[in-house]
Amino acid sequence: MTKSIIERIQPAVRNISPYTLHEYEYEVKINQNENPYDVPADIKQDILDYALDRSWSRYPPFVPTRLHELLADYADWSPDGIITGNGSNEIIQAVMAVLLPEGGRLVLPTPTFTVYKLIATIMGGIVDHVPLTPDYQFDCDAVERAARNADMVIICSPNNPTGALYSPDRLERLLEMTDAAVIVDEAYYEFSRETVIPLIRRYDNLIVFRTFSKAFSLAGLRFGYGVMAPVLAAEVKKAALPYNLNFITTAAAEKLLENRDRLAVYIDELIKSRDKLFKDLQFIEGVTVYPSRSNFLLFETPYTPKDVFDGLLEDGLLVRDVSSYPMLEQALRVSVSTPKDNARFVTALTRVMNDLSQRR
Amino acid sequence: MTKSIIERIQPAVRNISPYTLHEYEYEVKINQNENPYDVPADIKQDILDYALDRSWSRYPPFVPTRLHELLADYADWSPDGIITGNGSNEIIQAVMAVLLPEGGRLVLPTPTFTVYKLIATIMGGIVDHVPLTPDYQFDCDAVERAARNADMVIICSPNNPTGALYSPDRLERLLEMTDAAVIVDEAYYEFSRETVIPLIRRYDNLIVFRTFSKAFSLAGLRFGYGVMAPVLAAEVKKAALPYNLNFITTAAAEKLLENRDRLAVYIDELIKSRDKLFKDLQFIEGVTVYPSRSNFLLFETPYTPKDVFDGLLEDGLLVRDVSSYPMLEQALRVSVSTPKDNARFVTALTRVMNDLSQRR
Repeated sequence: MTKSIIERIQPAVRNISPYTLHEYEYEVKINQNENPYDVPADIKQDILDYALDRSWSRYPPFVPTRLHELLADYADWSPDGIITGNGSNEIIQAVMAVLLPEGGRLVLPTPTFTVYKLIATIMGGIVDHVPLTPDYQFDCDAVERAARNADMVIICSPNNPTGALYSPDRLERLLEMTDAAVIVDEAYYEFSRETVIPLIRRYDNLIVFRTFSKAFSLAGLRFGYGVMAPVLAAEVKKAALPYNLNFITTAAAEKLLENRDRLAVYIDELIKSRDKLFKDLQFIEGVTVYPSRSNFLLFETPYTPKDVFDGLLEDGLLVRDVSSYPMLEQALRVSVSTPKDNARFVTALTRVMNDLSQRR
Repeated sequence: MTKSIIERIQPAVRNISPYTLHEYEYEVKINQNENPYDVPADIKQDILDYALDRSWSRYPPFVPTRLHELLADYADWSPDGIITGNGSNEIIQAVMAVLLPEGGRLVLPTPTFTVYKLIATIMGGIVDHVPLTPDYQFDCDAVERAARNADMVIICSPNNPTGALYSPDRLERLLEMTDAAVIVDEAYYEFSRETVIPLIRRYDNLIVFRTFSKAFSLAGLRFGYGVMAPVLAAEVKKAALPYNLNFITTAAAEKLLENRDRLAVYIDELIKSRDKLFKDLQFIEGVTVYPSRSNFLLFETPYTPKDVFDGLLEDGLLVRDVSSYPMLEQALRVSVSTPKDNARFVTALTRVMNDLSQRR
């Protein structure tokens, strides 16, 4: 052998820092924008009863037809314009494999969800970061300028971890002036209640991602979907792995769509809780909190975010320190939880801010 | 807009024919090399009890540590040299993303499992097909010659859909003379009982894939894993999507590994049934059957495979018509099932062969 296997690793991949995970002890988990309300027990039981009866040794169907029909009804789109996967990450990967050429240019409003850049880098794409405005809104003018020479634009709207929505009017203007593939990740759609899916009828370069990991309480089972022009979906399907979706996740997604009226109650509750938590945080001395259309809030303090994080963890609360993101050197992100957990968080943050101010 | 979105589809992807699926009515499904023996009901119940208790709205752990330890024990390898995914397809994709450059050359003994070529094409790789010998054995000399200028070699051993094993001695010779990444897909390992994992200690360019979709009766839940040098696994992990494995599949794989002595009984049964079915098919006039180290048999007849397929389906048996594969113009593939199903298949095939011979 002359060449080591490590020399064969794609240079873009070698340059990626490995993700290292810290494990923490906590009582309240408000770090991953999960839904604090589990799938109702009777719905879980129905799905598990089906799983007990069904043979596990048989492959899932090649196309989960019923699930695609239910999603089409929910998204008000056509079943043949829908792609399903193990979380929307898998859909992102398939879309990039099909639409982002080697060396292709991806415009990414930044800071945002880190997985877009990770997958684009592995796929050999070049990322062009467009900073948010100083108050963490989308800089639509800058996005439009950057999109002129781009192959792809990805807009997370509402944006994770900052919470702002990309205005639908400005999105339409972006679509008017670019022929790049424009992806809008509506992972938090159920909390913003704004969707751009209807625009796909006029702009076939628009692709919308959704997930069941947030409003639908299904992060543990991994399910996401993409909505796009059927002619494009036919191409993206070629890059989606066959039989990718296991039969239990499929059954769970179907059952949740059938029972979505029951989930709506929890979503309403979370939206109300978010707005209350936003107000409560505004009252804490030294905390700057940003408006959010999703199920989390970004806040800044004058203190080292790691100290704020540690202080909250002492009280059993696990939030997300996002200070390693560009622009967010002073920021943390907290997921909206139950009224009880939110109140506990407000109390703890008040205590931590007091302690840190006295330590100065 | 000046450029249509369809013009942006990668040319290699546009050239792929979309997979079209025919749905058939059948009583005995012997077309996908599935295990006819389901996971035992008490094991299913244990997994489902855990699923009922666990919150579905919480993400799976970032690394399924316990599962990696159990797999390491089973494969006699180190946990940090193991990658897990939704079926081995996902592992193939991650390995190619990391090791196959744009325009890179993949050597593929052919005919074989079609997904390798599909993923390589989407990843921008060029496939160099090395035909099997006329009796469907690996042409190791030709593989070695082709490997000299290759970036990657994929060997499905035992090979799907033909059943032959790549000799471990010849594999070692291949590894001696190439620094390409050499992937051995041991999807059917439990039926061949031959593994090349120990060779990874000496050749860090060797990667072994395994799946739970065959011997472990878990096709419905989608689980596969890759075994490689830990230094390589650290790089491949970067291309594996975060939180890719849902918590139920993880729990199921763990529980099956803990109970693998119970599954061994079914595997023994299937190996015995395969050898009996092979002998039975040898007695059917006009049928040429090939030896197999897996849980399926390839057979040829002088008749149009579609007619044989249709004749078997009339008797309720769904086999796989593989006549569209290179070299296999006269061939079909049948999965080994229960003794009762196998006997039914032998009776039906005898009847069909009689009918077709009289029609001539």
